[in-house]
Amino acid sequence: MISPMRWDRDRLIMLDQRVLPTQEAWLELSQYHEVVQAIRDMAVRGAPAIGVAAAYGMALAALNHVPKHQAKAALAASRPTAVNLFWALDRIDNMPIWSFEEVLAEAQAIEQEDLEMNYAIGRHGAELIAQGANIMTVCNTGSLATAGHGTALGVIRTAHQEGKGIHVYSCETRPRQQGLRLTAYELSAEGIPFHSIADGVAGSLMRAGKVDCVIAGADRIAANGDSANKIGTYSLAVLANHHGIPFYIAAPSSTLDPTLPTGDLIPIEERSAEELTHIEGIQIAPTNCPVFNPAFDVTPGHLISAIVTEKGIVRAPYSF
Amino acid sequence: MISPMRWDRDRLIMLDQRVLPTQEAWLELSQYHEVVQAIRDMAVRGAPAIGVAAAYGMALAALNHVPKHQAKAALAASRPTAVNLFWALDRIDNMPIWSFEEVLAEAQAIEQEDLEMNYAIGRHGAELIAQGANIMTVCNTGSLATAGHGTALGVIRTAHQEGKGIHVYSCETRPRQQGLRLTAYELSAEGIPFHSIADGVAGSLMRAGKVDCVIAGADRIAANGDSANKIGTYSLAVLANHHGIPFYIAAPSSTLDPTLPTGDLIPIEERSAEELTHIEGIQIAPTNCPVFNPAFDVTPGHLISAIVTEKGIVRAPYSF
Repeated sequence: MISPMRWDRDRLIMLDQRVLPTQEAWLELSQYHEVVQAIRDMAVRGAPAIGVAAAYGMALAALNHVPKHQAKAALAASRPTAVNLFWALDRIDNMPIWSFEEVLAEAQAIEQEDLEMNYAIGRHGAELIAQGANIMTVCNTGSLATAGHGTALGVIRTAHQEGKGIHVYSCETRPRQQGLRLTAYELSAEGIPFHSIADGVAGSLMRAGKVDCVIAGADRIAANGDSANKIGTYSLAVLANHHGIPFYIAAPSSTLDPTLPTGDLIPIEERSAEELTHIEGIQIAPTNCPVFNPAFDVTPGHLISAIVTEKGIVRAPYSF
Repeated sequence: MISPMRWDRDRLIMLDQRVLPTQEAWLELSQYHEVVQAIRDMAVRGAPAIGVAAAYGMALAALNHVPKHQAKAALAASRPTAVNLFWALDRIDNMPIWSFEEVLAEAQAIEQEDLEMNYAIGRHGAELIAQGANIMTVCNTGSLATAGHGTALGVIRTAHQEGKGIHVYSCETRPRQQGLRLTAYELSAEGIPFHSIADGVAGSLMRAGKVDCVIAGADRIAANGDSANKIGTYSLAVLANHHGIPFYIAAPSSTLDPTLPTGDLIPIEERSAEELTHIEGIQIAPTNCPVFNPAFDVTPGHLISAIVTEKGIVRAPYSF
């Protein structure tokens, strides 16, 4: 099972997910601000993996005697939507001692706990998956998006390992194509049967009766169950609802943000036009094509059949 | 206004839409089988433009003394879904004389009539567009997809020319990105305000109240109004329905196929995996990534608020 990062003595070795699956390149990060940049540029992505990377960024700051508040502020400003980032930073910030050894140990604990939570999410979530199910998913929520195993893709992985004979429809997930690049890469490596599809194929597959459930991750879940996730997730939830197909969210409890009563308060990051207009550096669209490029959308809790965390399965109405 | 093809003495000069908008290259076709290839490879695309191209292909066959049935069979096999192709071929086939001059004149008549139909579609359809409307569209249904002006994009063009102060959300339309490449190109050239979006953005824009109507073209419309169009159109129709937003289809009457009682009988073309896995020849997905790549989907008539043809506006229930 591939891991998005590992600690090596005095540096963080990070897989550069921007060039997967055709290249496997590793970044060596020895300064906390290099971690900020890696998160911002999406060399690492996925809410839980961002949390782990930020914790290691704090370890680098402690190692290099950077003031704690300075590193925390810079890491917190790297991306706005995923709450796991702030959760991990607060956890380090709340430690009584600002020493490299202590912070590194805490970062490693966060990483290890995330892995264990994902195994638990997989076990709980697999109870929702019928024998022979066709499962649709979006973006990448697997080993690459977490400390390992994955959230929504962790449920798929566990169901596969339990011998359920599943098949996956993996949505491409434009603009950055995490489904086509990363989820396809993980599913191929594990031998899980799947087909990649363009995002626009989802509705017609549901209408044809070829989808038994949809499962997605989350970057932040409000107290009422409203869930921010990769752009396109909301459309899948509406489509699933229209066709009477269950729509599930899988995420660790660190994704819950009970301080927000509803999802309308979740900040939605907008990213550059180039993510849509250029692919691998090649211009696709007309020069200066205007683009609206939100990275996330919010699915209201009432469209979510169940939310799976490491603690178990929760159903609507939600109250976290 | 750009035109997808023009006749020049003894050959068809065709814009290669595969390399737009970054290159403007013209193909010179002097054999009917080169037209077959151009349709199959999508150098020309869009149901009405395919019909016009096929008619000119028949003119090339007549010029080169190819048996009529041979040319018709090859052109008919180029793509399966758009009915305008078969309509144009039947119209030429039903002519009493198989002579170059006569066939060329008929092809030019088909082209000229399509242009006039599109102006009429634009006039009728613009009645559905409110002042200052935000209009969502998919794929390319403009000058490039027709003999000129366009169908769904023709309605947008006419509404803009009437001074309605509209703004367009143009869906990218993966896998072949006709929205991002071609519609953005036409909208930019005409100075119509717009934003390109990834296909997955549609739902969240509707939820935010930023879409007043959706308008799409069609490749074939069954007797009950079920409409085949570019993959992703059905998802937009369901999303529009969920949000109480009107969803319109605009197409010339040559797109109607009253021989089919429902859309379930429309053949849906599946195209190669490479359309999704490679962009501009660059591999994006893992090697041998399995792909399901249907080129079209079918939107049931009950989700279509109105169908606009050159004859006027028709509303559900449909009976063609």
